[in-house]
Amino acid sequence: MKAAVLGYGTVGGGVVDVLFENKDAIASRVGEEIEVKYILDIRTFPGDAHEDLITNDFNRILEDKEVKIVCETMGGLKPAYEFTKSLLEAGKSVCTSNKELVAAHGPELLRIAKEHNCKYLFEASVGGGIPILRPLLDCLTAEKIDEITGILNGTTNYMLTKMDKEGSDYADVLKEAQEKGYAERNPEADVEGYDACRKIAILASLNYQKTVNYEDIYTEGISAIDSRDFAYAAELGMNIKLLGMCKEIGGKKYALVAPFMLSPENPLYAVNDVFNGILVHGNMVDQVMFYGRGAGKLPTASAVVSDVVEEAKTIGKASAVKWSDEKVDLSDKNELEFGYFVRINGNPENSNYNELFADAKVIGKDGITGEFALVTGRMTEGEFLKKYESLKDAVKFIRIK
Amino acid sequence: MKAAVLGYGTVGGGVVDVLFENKDAIASRVGEEIEVKYILDIRTFPGDAHEDLITNDFNRILEDKEVKIVCETMGGLKPAYEFTKSLLEAGKSVCTSNKELVAAHGPELLRIAKEHNCKYLFEASVGGGIPILRPLLDCLTAEKIDEITGILNGTTNYMLTKMDKEGSDYADVLKEAQEKGYAERNPEADVEGYDACRKIAILASLNYQKTVNYEDIYTEGISAIDSRDFAYAAELGMNIKLLGMCKEIGGKKYALVAPFMLSPENPLYAVNDVFNGILVHGNMVDQVMFYGRGAGKLPTASAVVSDVVEEAKTIGKASAVKWSDEKVDLSDKNELEFGYFVRINGNPENSNYNELFADAKVIGKDGITGEFALVTGRMTEGEFLKKYESLKDAVKFIRIK
Repeated sequence: MKAAVLGYGTVGGGVVDVLFENKDAIASRVGEEIEVKYILDIRTFPGDAHEDLITNDFNRILEDKEVKIVCETMGGLKPAYEFTKSLLEAGKSVCTSNKELVAAHGPELLRIAKEHNCKYLFEASVGGGIPILRPLLDCLTAEKIDEITGILNGTTNYMLTKMDKEGSDYADVLKEAQEKGYAERNPEADVEGYDACRKIAILASLNYQKTVNYEDIYTEGISAIDSRDFAYAAELGMNIKLLGMCKEIGGKKYALVAPFMLSPENPLYAVNDVFNGILVHGNMVDQVMFYGRGAGKLPTASAVVSDVVEEAKTIGKASAVKWSDEKVDLSDKNELEFGYFVRINGNPENSNYNELFADAKVIGKDGITGEFALVTGRMTEGEFLKKYESLKDAVKFIRIK
Repeated sequence: MKAAVLGYGTVGGGVVDVLFENKDAIASRVGEEIEVKYILDIRTFPGDAHEDLITNDFNRILEDKEVKIVCETMGGLKPAYEFTKSLLEAGKSVCTSNKELVAAHGPELLRIAKEHNCKYLFEASVGGGIPILRPLLDCLTAEKIDEITGILNGTTNYMLTKMDKEGSDYADVLKEAQEKGYAERNPEADVEGYDACRKIAILASLNYQKTVNYEDIYTEGISAIDSRDFAYAAELGMNIKLLGMCKEIGGKKYALVAPFMLSPENPLYAVNDVFNGILVHGNMVDQVMFYGRGAGKLPTASAVVSDVVEEAKTIGKASAVKWSDEKVDLSDKNELEFGYFVRINGNPENSNYNELFADAKVIGKDGITGEFALVTGRMTEGEFLKKYESLKDAVKFIRIK
């Protein structure tokens, strides 16, 4: 069985490594060896162990009838979208880690694959090395899944964990994450929640079998979280995590991405550093969590290769994944209920908070002066925002899960 | 598609509930409805909503050509073993939660199923509602899995969590667990680790594709754990969990079940109450954890029904699960390396501990007198046990993961 890899960057390099390193284990599962015939990259890699496989000519791969499976690990929409379409139209299955492309064109690419008796597989697009899409679709099949909540971005989770455990400032941990290669020079996609948003859009779409447009999802990142928020959170015995969430209540569907305060009872509380955790709630099984490395060369490559194995074992069979073009009408997130942590300048005595939030608990924290904080009871976000608008000297709020 | 359920106890009742409650969701995944045609039980259930389906005649099910899938939720070997064999020989697939039967006769029943173009499926036999067998076999296919460590028994985890959080005594938490129905009147299978042992035997067998005999696995339960152990553990910032473990090092295979001290860095540390967690280590993906309800009516039933869905979607196709009769020769657990927590009567000054464990750290705990404790460095269990034998006034030891 011959395969090709598009893009010899971090994940692409990992895919090649996994296919070579675990060649025998993979062959025993597939029933035959998987051989990498081409690696597409516009760069050259003099001295690379697989230099002979590298080509900059996409058409060689497209036109080679021996190549049945292609791993797309380029990322981004251009040229990945056109390449993927051409490959699927040529009947070659594509396994990808490219969440941007999946979130933007998933249903179309799935349809093209179906029409050409091949598959478009994207286990690696959500949760890195964590098996999540296949468990969701092929294992939790006795369930009505009413909520999926995940720590879906390793970079921000690394940053929030540092802020939590070491009391560091946002700017410092961002710099450190950039130095370690966890965050990009332009960290927007991670810290503003766009990456998590695409991932929850994919999860929600697969769960609803229709399209949740990522642009419709209310998305709030972590760039406004500071060390004082963590000091208050610690006082409350909680921590702060960036969560992507989709939820169905009484037939209405909701999705959002935002930082949340979590208590230790929540299994996501203990998901730290670059790890991801995806908590799925079903009406029979209650909570199930999938945990592991949500990013990184080899974990992500492992998920891409698991798709290669799946395809190699079922070649010529169409995928059973249902994800139609039909759009999911998300309901207004202001209908969702949360508790709220609110910071207010000044002191409780001079605040109008108790006219608005009668049952709120006031929280002070040694070393923090000139402000105080509240924890409100649970209410709809709409109700909260209305009161919050009337709150004098409000600094910010964070939702409580 | 017609199904039958053997045993209308907790899990069997749950299977019937799930199949009725989620009928539409399940039908949409299978492509047709799954109808329960019989429920086998020797008892009668006057007034039960499904009274008309209940029969005490196994042969009616066996001989009914319409019944393609049978859920075996009786537990135990007798008569489940004979029933399962007959059903498989009649070409009916069997989905089970019966870990005793799977651990004792898994490879034989898989072989009979294969010979008769049907399947023997047992997702529910390990980890209750947690998808674990299918993710292990069908998702982590790019990996060489070198370790599986799990909290596999909900009853003991409930007890240990209570002892940890509330400082309760073993006898009290056992009584409470029995009152809540989590523990049996005769709690041996849970508290002595036999249940966890069968589950790790199943996981290890599937991973090695050969038979790990559960009787070969060194098994130690939690009945010797007391509140002082937890007091010391708290002093060390750790807790105590009953772990089932299989591990491959340099081609040698090991398995054991024992209580371990865990630090908060271990993802299993936060798996509390009746929840289970299974941590899988692969050479590419690093750590992946699967978490959820390891027991209970509906979660376990959910896993049984996920097998029913799998079978209904692939009826007539043999299972790809490889688990041969060939026995795995487990290596001596004394070759494994751990750290050790050791309790010793008397005080450090009069002890010979430092002749034996030169680099050990001594731990005292306010309120505990007449004894002290050590934490040793890591060494093989063989080396440790030799030293431990020479240790004067030793009370007990607990391994540290």
